[in-house]
Amino acid sequence: MILGKASIRFDEAPYILGYASVVGKKEGEGPLGKLFDSVVEDPMFNGTSWEDAESKLQAQIAHYAIRKAGLNAGDIRYIYAGDLLGQLIATSFGLKDLNIPLFGLYGACSTMGESLSLGAMSVAGGFSEHTLCLTSSHFASAEKTFRFPLDYGTQRKFSATWTVTGGGGVVLGKTRSKARVTGITTGKIVDYGLKDKENMGACMAPAAADTIAQHFMDYSSKPEDYDKIITGDLGYIGQTILIDLLEEKGYDIKSNHMDCGIEIFDKDKQDTHAGASGCGCSASVLCSYILGEITKGAWKKVLFVPTGALFSPVTSNEGNSIPGIAHGVIIEHAS
Amino acid sequence: MILGKASIRFDEAPYILGYASVVGKKEGEGPLGKLFDSVVEDPMFNGTSWEDAESKLQAQIAHYAIRKAGLNAGDIRYIYAGDLLGQLIATSFGLKDLNIPLFGLYGACSTMGESLSLGAMSVAGGFSEHTLCLTSSHFASAEKTFRFPLDYGTQRKFSATWTVTGGGGVVLGKTRSKARVTGITTGKIVDYGLKDKENMGACMAPAAADTIAQHFMDYSSKPEDYDKIITGDLGYIGQTILIDLLEEKGYDIKSNHMDCGIEIFDKDKQDTHAGASGCGCSASVLCSYILGEITKGAWKKVLFVPTGALFSPVTSNEGNSIPGIAHGVIIEHAS
Repeated sequence: MILGKASIRFDEAPYILGYASVVGKKEGEGPLGKLFDSVVEDPMFNGTSWEDAESKLQAQIAHYAIRKAGLNAGDIRYIYAGDLLGQLIATSFGLKDLNIPLFGLYGACSTMGESLSLGAMSVAGGFSEHTLCLTSSHFASAEKTFRFPLDYGTQRKFSATWTVTGGGGVVLGKTRSKARVTGITTGKIVDYGLKDKENMGACMAPAAADTIAQHFMDYSSKPEDYDKIITGDLGYIGQTILIDLLEEKGYDIKSNHMDCGIEIFDKDKQDTHAGASGCGCSASVLCSYILGEITKGAWKKVLFVPTGALFSPVTSNEGNSIPGIAHGVIIEHAS
Repeated sequence: MILGKASIRFDEAPYILGYASVVGKKEGEGPLGKLFDSVVEDPMFNGTSWEDAESKLQAQIAHYAIRKAGLNAGDIRYIYAGDLLGQLIATSFGLKDLNIPLFGLYGACSTMGESLSLGAMSVAGGFSEHTLCLTSSHFASAEKTFRFPLDYGTQRKFSATWTVTGGGGVVLGKTRSKARVTGITTGKIVDYGLKDKENMGACMAPAAADTIAQHFMDYSSKPEDYDKIITGDLGYIGQTILIDLLEEKGYDIKSNHMDCGIEIFDKDKQDTHAGASGCGCSASVLCSYILGEITKGAWKKVLFVPTGALFSPVTSNEGNSIPGIAHGVIIEHAS
């Protein structure tokens, strides 16, 4: 059922049949380390380049998620996937051997929200029995693409976040399980004119605030209706801005807000400054900690809002701003 | 209704409420010049950079398509859009002022097929009243991204295609009109190991052959069931390969195959070598010539198959191949 301007409540909400997370060594050493399905010590993932490494990472996520759903690759009708690299090369090379029809997505670090939204529509609309939604990021391939080659040893600002090496995948379908995607609120591009590529949290916070406020309006709901409101990778700076912006709009999310970019690393011990980022940040935290709490019923209802900074080195060098986008997904415990 | 491995036949097929094409000067001088809604003489589209030019192009397409559908921006529930540039910057900057929830897509030059597929699902599934599907490309922004800066004056191989400056947009909805999207066949990544970035037609032809053959199997149909089978931007070389590959699979499409990359330029007079390419190639030909023929009933049923080469300068320089993908959409005349 269509709600308000940007939301859907699914009449037949798709179930989460399986989910998996794979991360790198640093993520494995963080506070959530024990919850991931696999921690890979080799940053190259046995590949030949950073791009190849991320492809192999994404392939592993797909295989684990499909296996944990009790399915084979041949059972999956569609994949909705993307990554941060130009032309989605981690996705293209990582998933090609699966021989599954693919919709390539680009939502920057909001991709897990975008893939879950579209994947849920495909199942709820009767267009797919089983859909795989996944995304990944890799610290080294992202730094190479968006900032400086690692070899330069460039000093990072305290407002910068650390791109997660990792990712997550979710298989959606109609078979009963302990968690389901009950609704979505789709984000639009929000641009406050910010230009600092080492402060992505600030660039994304207005988009997160916009989507979350739109969600409350569309659903006629309030922050207390959710056990957790979870953003993707705002980090410490973005979180402060988000809470302020929503307070201005009349919503107090302080007591139940959580940000994956704050949870995945230990800021003090792991030298990650403003937190973590990357498509793989919210995806790997979703497919470990968050879905763990939901399936066991500790959290009954969560608003999951991956956040993306649509940062292009080209337009940024041309003096342009960094717009943001955020896609909301409601995930509920099912019994 | 789900058909076979990769296809859907829509029980309630969405209608095409409006469509629009905008192109550059060279495209306007080609054989289809009179059919486009707007031919813009200034390659900068009054912008400040090639990226800005493409953003302004995409904004124009959106406005024309929405207006031709008799709607306002506020009536559109979702946009499904993308382009060839890193981080979809033509889309991000071009569409942000519309304030419409956006799903960013990357399917290289297959994007019009991908956006129509997902857009049709959103309407047919009851998740949207009006959905805008669009894409664009720009010769100069694409050359800069994928090949050499124009200023180098690099000589082009005869197997190379010319990236179209232009694009198209389609508004889908439930109101009766003269054309509708009745089904889709979603492509998977197909990689024959080809590496020549100046022969994209050869890189994409195997993906087109795969999707078209899959379509015939899923639908239990044959080439004669379609007035036209239209690929995106294979060009002359890719067309030959496609016809050969499908002949090997037992399908003869010679008599009703058409390629947008062959139609849009006059090869001899316009010095475009193997033909045209770019997301905007199939999108602009769809939103002028093809939908024109379908709405007036000259063509009753068309299989439209935009083709994408998932070419990344990064992985290509690392020695990797250029995989392809192609998404099929059935468009039928409605009376």
